[in-house]
Amino acid sequence: MDVAVVSIVMGSDSDLKIMKEAAKALEEFGVSYELTIVSAHRTPERTATYAKSLESRGIEILIAGAGGAAHLPGVLASSCNIPVIGVPIKATALDGMDSLLSIVQMPKGIPVATVGINSAYNAGLLAVEMLSLKYTELREKMSAYRKKMAQEVEEKARILEEVGYEKYEARKGEGK
Amino acid sequence: MDVAVVSIVMGSDSDLKIMKEAAKALEEFGVSYELTIVSAHRTPERTATYAKSLESRGIEILIAGAGGAAHLPGVLASSCNIPVIGVPIKATALDGMDSLLSIVQMPKGIPVATVGINSAYNAGLLAVEMLSLKYTELREKMSAYRKKMAQEVEEKARILEEVGYEKYEARKGEGK
Amino acid sequence: MDVAVVSIVMGSDSDLKIMKEAAKALEEFGVSYELTIVSAHRTPERTATYAKSLESRGIEILIAGAGGAAHLPGVLASSCNIPVIGVPIKATALDGMDSLLSIVQMPKGIPVATVGINSAYNAGLLAVEMLSLKYTELREKMSAYRKKMAQEVEEKARILEEVGYEKYEARKGEGK
Amino acid sequence: MDVAVVSIVMGSDSDLKIMKEAAKALEEFGVSYELTIVSAHRTPERTATYAKSLESRGIEILIAGAGGAAHLPGVLASSCNIPVIGVPIKATALDGMDSLLSIVQMPKGIPVATVGINSAYNAGLLAVEMLSLKYTELREKMSAYRKKMAQEVEEKARILEEVGYEKYEARKGEGK
Amino acid sequence: MDVAVVSIVMGSDSDLKIMKEAAKALEEFGVSYELTIVSAHRTPERTATYAKSLESRGIEILIAGAGGAAHLPGVLASSCNIPVIGVPIKATALDGMDSLLSIVQMPKGIPVATVGINSAYNAGLLAVEMLSLKYTELREKMSAYRKKMAQEVEEKARILEEVGYEKYEARKGEGK
Amino acid sequence: MDVAVVSIVMGSDSDLKIMKEAAKALEEFGVSYELTIVSAHRTPERTATYAKSLESRGIEILIAGAGGAAHLPGVLASSCNIPVIGVPIKATALDGMDSLLSIVQMPKGIPVATVGINSAYNAGLLAVEMLSLKYTELREKMSAYRKKMAQEVEEKARILEEVGYEKYEARKGEGK
Amino acid sequence: MDVAVVSIVMGSDSDLKIMKEAAKALEEFGVSYELTIVSAHRTPERTATYAKSLESRGIEILIAGAGGAAHLPGVLASSCNIPVIGVPIKATALDGMDSLLSIVQMPKGIPVATVGINSAYNAGLLAVEMLSLKYTELREKMSAYRKKMAQEVEEKARILEEVGYEKYEARKGEGK
Amino acid sequence: MDVAVVSIVMGSDSDLKIMKEAAKALEEFGVSYELTIVSAHRTPERTATYAKSLESRGIEILIAGAGGAAHLPGVLASSCNIPVIGVPIKATALDGMDSLLSIVQMPKGIPVATVGINSAYNAGLLAVEMLSLKYTELREKMSAYRKKMAQEVEEKARILEEVGYEKYEARKGEGK
Repeated sequence: MDVAVVSIVMGSDSDLKIMKEAAKALEEFGVSYELTIVSAHRTPERTATYAKSLESRGIEILIAGAGGAAHLPGVLASSCNIPVIGVPIKATALDGMDSLLSIVQMPKGIPVATVGINSAYNAGLLAVEMLSLKYTELREKMSAYRKKMAQEVEEKARILEEVGYEKYEARKGEGK
Repeated sequence: MDVAVVSIVMGSDSDLKIMKEAAKALEEFGVSYELTIVSAHRTPERTATYAKSLESRGIEILIAGAGGAAHLPGVLASSCNIPVIGVPIKATALDGMDSLLSIVQMPKGIPVATVGINSAYNAGLLAVEMLSLKYTELREKMSAYRKKMAQEVEEKARILEEVGYEKYEARKGEGK
Repeated sequence: MDVAVVSIVMGSDSDLKIMKEAAKALEEFGVSYELTIVSAHRTPERTATYAKSLESRGIEILIAGAGGAAHLPGVLASSCNIPVIGVPIKATALDGMDSLLSIVQMPKGIPVATVGINSAYNAGLLAVEMLSLKYTELREKMSAYRKKMAQEVEEKARILEEVGYEKYEARKGEGK
Repeated sequence: MDVAVVSIVMGSDSDLKIMKEAAKALEEFGVSYELTIVSAHRTPERTATYAKSLESRGIEILIAGAGGAAHLPGVLASSCNIPVIGVPIKATALDGMDSLLSIVQMPKGIPVATVGINSAYNAGLLAVEMLSLKYTELREKMSAYRKKMAQEVEEKARILEEVGYEKYEARKGEGK
Repeated sequence: MDVAVVSIVMGSDSDLKIMKEAAKALEEFGVSYELTIVSAHRTPERTATYAKSLESRGIEILIAGAGGAAHLPGVLASSCNIPVIGVPIKATALDGMDSLLSIVQMPKGIPVATVGINSAYNAGLLAVEMLSLKYTELREKMSAYRKKMAQEVEEKARILEEVGYEKYEARKGEGK
Repeated sequence: MDVAVVSIVMGSDSDLKIMKEAAKALEEFGVSYELTIVSAHRTPERTATYAKSLESRGIEILIAGAGGAAHLPGVLASSCNIPVIGVPIKATALDGMDSLLSIVQMPKGIPVATVGINSAYNAGLLAVEMLSLKYTELREKMSAYRKKMAQEVEEKARILEEVGYEKYEARKGEGK
Repeated sequence: MDVAVVSIVMGSDSDLKIMKEAAKALEEFGVSYELTIVSAHRTPERTATYAKSLESRGIEILIAGAGGAAHLPGVLASSCNIPVIGVPIKATALDGMDSLLSIVQMPKGIPVATVGINSAYNAGLLAVEMLSLKYTELREKMSAYRKKMAQEVEEKARILEEVGYEKYEARKGEGK
Repeated sequence: MDVAVVSIVMGSDSDLKIMKEAAKALEEFGVSYELTIVSAHRTPERTATYAKSLESRGIEILIAGAGGAAHLPGVLASSCNIPVIGVPIKATALDGMDSLLSIVQMPKGIPVATVGINSAYNAGLLAVEMLSLKYTELREKMSAYRKKMAQEVEEKARILEEVGYEKYEARKGEGK
């Protein structure tokens, strides 16, 4: 998997601070990706060209993040046949609700797999789950990731039960 | 003005019952228009081709209606330089709020002139107002339209004041 | 693909009228599926057992629909490593907004691929796109599906342009 | 009442700064409790085991707090027969509305007693009210608590009436 | 338990068609109740008198339903020390969201145990769960109720799996 | 009080079915009123002239109802010094929320006394309460009105307590 | 007007920073008022007693502010016959929408004159407008207040037109 | 184009920090404009006079920004026949949703071309697009503007692809 199999795109470089979390998730699983900026509105031709290039270049999953009237995931989905994961980004006064509805409420025929507002990391995990259909070693990695996540929760629970909430918060340096 | 100067497009023929009101408004003002279906998601290439053909074919204003994750107005606006009027259509369980936000919350650089939910008739009037910059006879027609509208309200007010609400409703056959 | 590779589950049989559309989408693409009822709240043990049985039984994608405080997709996602597609169902007074938020706003670590409210058909299509990573013949079918969908829009556009909105509506028997 | 009769759980230790208020309320009334972390999504098996252990261990009321797609209260309610009090926590961009709807809109058969967003203290008080059915001395304590609360309001009212709003604010050191 | 231990009140007799479900739930569990109309706004004195009479008359749980600016549950909670369960009723144009927020967002000190919009049946079940602290035979009944509910879901699942969605819907007479 | 002291206006005669309830409330209290149509948008000059005529003609309270972008109450308030009561009317897809916010969120300096969505009857009662400052006999009438309202609730409560919910509903002919 | 004719009440002294603006508005018009704390939930008896004392003590208008499940204005309105002005206060995570709906959506029979979120100053002005029915000198003061407000806007407009937006902002010390 | 052809107005000088962006957009395109303050509520007569003066003074497009119950764009639109562009401004606790609905939901007959919340720059661009109907040199400028905007995105994309997200963020000085 030396060649990128996932593409991460965003509508503006102001979305990078959110969208880089998708890249980090893929890195944790050793999944090659490319990451770039594609604006549905400012660069419509680049967007169409980019969408059409994906399959022939070996990209198997597309992750697209956008804010406001967030058309990028849907527009890309309309021009390629690979699964598109949409990440609504909180970018306006409306707390990300505009982005969420603009991404999730797609018409019959062109779905976008939408994750939570600003949840780019989860978009990366979802891509890994999809890739597991083909790259079965990823399923084991995911299983291990889940176990580690559960253990971390259980370890925190154990400490909290042991020391109580006051000491726990003090240790976290959040005792305010 | 024999050739169409306004284009009215919608994402699906299920939007026609709303969007035909834009056509009716233009007809009242003697403005030539074309009306067709262009889906941002189902026919992305047609959409791009259509947007790029507008100016060379003499279209001066574009009215686009769509529901749900309503990308059509914004996608068309990204590929042409003429004013785009967006009509949010109530097409899902969310009462048109998804359409409104998907259309109005456009990013810096690509505005869409948005009207109220299902307000295709107003989209037609707004097109007439824009066309008045160039076709000055339309301004007089608009002025007359406004006067007539005011007179109708005043006539209704006169009758209501004269007969009272009970008889007024009875006359309207709404006395329930 | 004789054995089911997709599982479609719903929280109650009152969701069947929506969720059967996911089955229909899969049928159109020749994808084998199983369909059943699993309630996160009424049958928690069945839910956990079911989730854990999926991978060993060869299920590769899970589609889960639920309404109100719609926990089913997230709860299933927490107990299996295959991609889970969530379908928010309008089942309460709140127009499906409660279902949408209950499904899409998952915490870091456990994504659910959410589609639009009541969009079970799109959930089926999204499953097909995911399966295409492994079953490459599905990608061609999807490509053909998309072309047919575009052609239908273009055919409707051609007729509407030819006959105008009045005759078009009359033909559709919607000329009210 | 040396043994814990109330369990306070939360989905993540980031919820502790809110949920510790439930513990404080119980402490004020001398009610024994246990407090831990249980994630419906990250530790599904622990969640099920925990829920089933409650009754046999003598827990009579469960208080569960969670944010976003807040499934924890409902999931626990589905696996035990004791009253579950849900605390929606503001943890995402959506101001806690996602948590509130995910907790309160439970299906027929599995109620969750929901309190206001971030209102963990009130969850503790509600637990005390419920425990009063069995531990009648708590009713008198609650009655005293209410009287004290009323007296504090009345004392503040008396001072405000006496000194006016300017001096009152100055005294509170909030005269900005 | 011959004497009423639960009181069910509503703000208007137009709420009866929703609130009677709470009564039905209690009847299923053999819990005695009283049911009446108390309007926080139209009969404020009756409301205060009623609230104060509850404990001395042996009422242990209060279920209150109201719509719009739904003050009844909170007002009653402010004048008694027993647990108050609030049922938001959809009674205005705003789909019950006004009722939900008016009931759940109580200030510190006076909680209301809120259930879902129109979920009076769940309010009854929640009352039973609370009563189980004292009347332990109710816990077994609740356990049986849960088992029966699970069996019904499992039976429906079995039939759906066996006959498929078309025949299932036909049997339900909903094959539209 | 032979001359009208209250003016009831609405933006369109389609609002009459709601706004006539304000008239009915005034009639019950023997308050003279005038009722007419004034559109902030369609008849701006009439609106300004009308607002300015109010005080000199002896109008002491203005009740204005409007839907959608409901500017009428605020626009009238800006041109007269008498209290303006605003009635938000549900007239669009957005359930009256647009009207409510357009009326209630007035800037500093120009208040509008807003009542609930479609609550024209309450607007009439509020006008009576205001008029009571000057016409003290109205206060007694209001006191009697409140007593009667309370008695009606108490009578319904008495019957419901006596006959139970089944017979009560049957009597109301709503036993569905 | 030496004796208070307006009462300003709030549910908690944390509301004072908002509600004092109502007092300031009344002071500008020379209207005597009293200001105190009355909690519908924490001091229900004081609330009822207070409401009933108003008329006999000569209070003619009541201004009540509250946040969250904001019952105070409605509860006071239910126990007195004078006009009640409600001020929704932003006090929870929900931006004041919970307060607004809890105050404005009152049932038939008991109106509350609601102003905008946090708009206590406007509540004071509205009280002045109501008092003008009886104290006619207030109408002239209001007329002068409006003129002064208009002149201030016009003066700002004149300066902005003269110096342009850059210098205007610099003068305001806001040139960021 | 020495004489102003666009008018930019706002309801208060607190809106200037948003509305000056409309001026900047016009300046970039060499479009003459005037900019002033006109309050629909505080200066109703000035508003009416101003609206009526526009056409005779050669103004061809009006841009109006307002917050809260944002009546200014609609009120101006009701008194002139030129296109009115409305800019909803976030000015209250409600995140600009009140402004958006107050501006966009105009009644049949009087449209306002609404842009996104706080999107004054886009309002300026939309005015340029409308002016292009008459001043054709503006269309070429707009075309060049769009090309430049696309090139900037492409340049950023090129750098991001080249250096990766870590270095890109470091260069932007946002590597937090």
